[in-house]
Amino acid sequence: MAEYIAPIQRLIEEFRRLPGVGAKTAARYAFATLNLTDDEAARFADAINGVKRDVHKCPVCMGLSSTSGECDICAGEGRDKSVICVVESAKDVMVMEKVRGYRGVYHVLGGSLSPLDNITPADLTVKELLLRVESGEVGEIIVATNPTPSGDTTAAYLARILEPYGITVSRLAYGIPVGGDIEYADEVTLYRAMEGRRSFN
Amino acid sequence: MAEYIAPIQRLIEEFRRLPGVGAKTAARYAFATLNLTDDEAARFADAINGVKRDVHKCPVCMGLSSTSGECDICAGEGRDKSVICVVESAKDVMVMEKVRGYRGVYHVLGGSLSPLDNITPADLTVKELLLRVESGEVGEIIVATNPTPSGDTTAAYLARILEPYGITVSRLAYGIPVGGDIEYADEVTLYRAMEGRRSFN
Repeated sequence: MAEYIAPIQRLIEEFRRLPGVGAKTAARYAFATLNLTDDEAARFADAINGVKRDVHKCPVCMGLSSTSGECDICAGEGRDKSVICVVESAKDVMVMEKVRGYRGVYHVLGGSLSPLDNITPADLTVKELLLRVESGEVGEIIVATNPTPSGDTTAAYLARILEPYGITVSRLAYGIPVGGDIEYADEVTLYRAMEGRRSFN
Repeated sequence: MAEYIAPIQRLIEEFRRLPGVGAKTAARYAFATLNLTDDEAARFADAINGVKRDVHKCPVCMGLSSTSGECDICAGEGRDKSVICVVESAKDVMVMEKVRGYRGVYHVLGGSLSPLDNITPADLTVKELLLRVESGEVGEIIVATNPTPSGDTTAAYLARILEPYGITVSRLAYGIPVGGDIEYADEVTLYRAMEGRRSFN
């Protein structure tokens, strides 16, 4: 016998698919959903269908687009197409956009190289990146993969295969976060911060 | 300009309605939803519509029912209709059911008395409870409201209005949780535990 009546149990199972959601949280969410008005619940359900229906892949940067054509960034006036920031996931584009100030474009790899998980360059959008570079418009590639083993591997791999094109390839600086405390930084971060130290003059 | 493209932003807003979900968690959920297959997302959306469509209020106990008639507990064979456990919310019924062993029925108040929030007996299903008691079948009412100020108020109120019917009205025991440590119990819980002490003989 299920603990909850069938329609609630079913919704709990669905909520449990979300990252970090266990049985108790899922039940809390399900009861909160039950307390929505009919209209609110219908809007919630439609928003879920909406992300599958209305979100497309941008044919240029492989990021997310709300149309079937180029995304707002790739199609945007005033974006510098000669600078490409390479990120692992479409979500990272939005994170980087919060920085403001960056006027270049992006390229979404769709993951990072990980031999253990059998993720090879063919699983990522490396080919599409090379095609963009070969078009001759690109002057700099900023690799913004995560500072994880697989992000590091990906960055090193990209630096190597982009070398023949004679363009600038850089990587985000890693170090002590602004507002962070040296006392609480882990040694790998400290090592990176030492390595990436900059002279005052 | 929204941080995320419209369909994703919309889903994030919906997830933020859930209890305890902030902007970052909602974004995480939205991207996880985006990564579901079309079928999985459709099932998720339908489960949300399902709880609104398929969950009804039991006309006897005011709890949740998967049919428009009596819920499984009220309609269940072998349930003792002379004992009613009064709880604040429909979710509490399912929590109490986990205890097993309890063979009585329930009554869902739909909240607790709270003058500050303007919740009076008329906002709860007190009238429905009295009708059940007046039917003459009921021998004992177990009040299982939460050990909070409003739960306590509700319990005291119910004890008072049920007094004329001459039936047993009891309340759940409050005290040190099993496996708990006296050292870490707060003084209110300790006071309740002292007050509710039981003799060994």
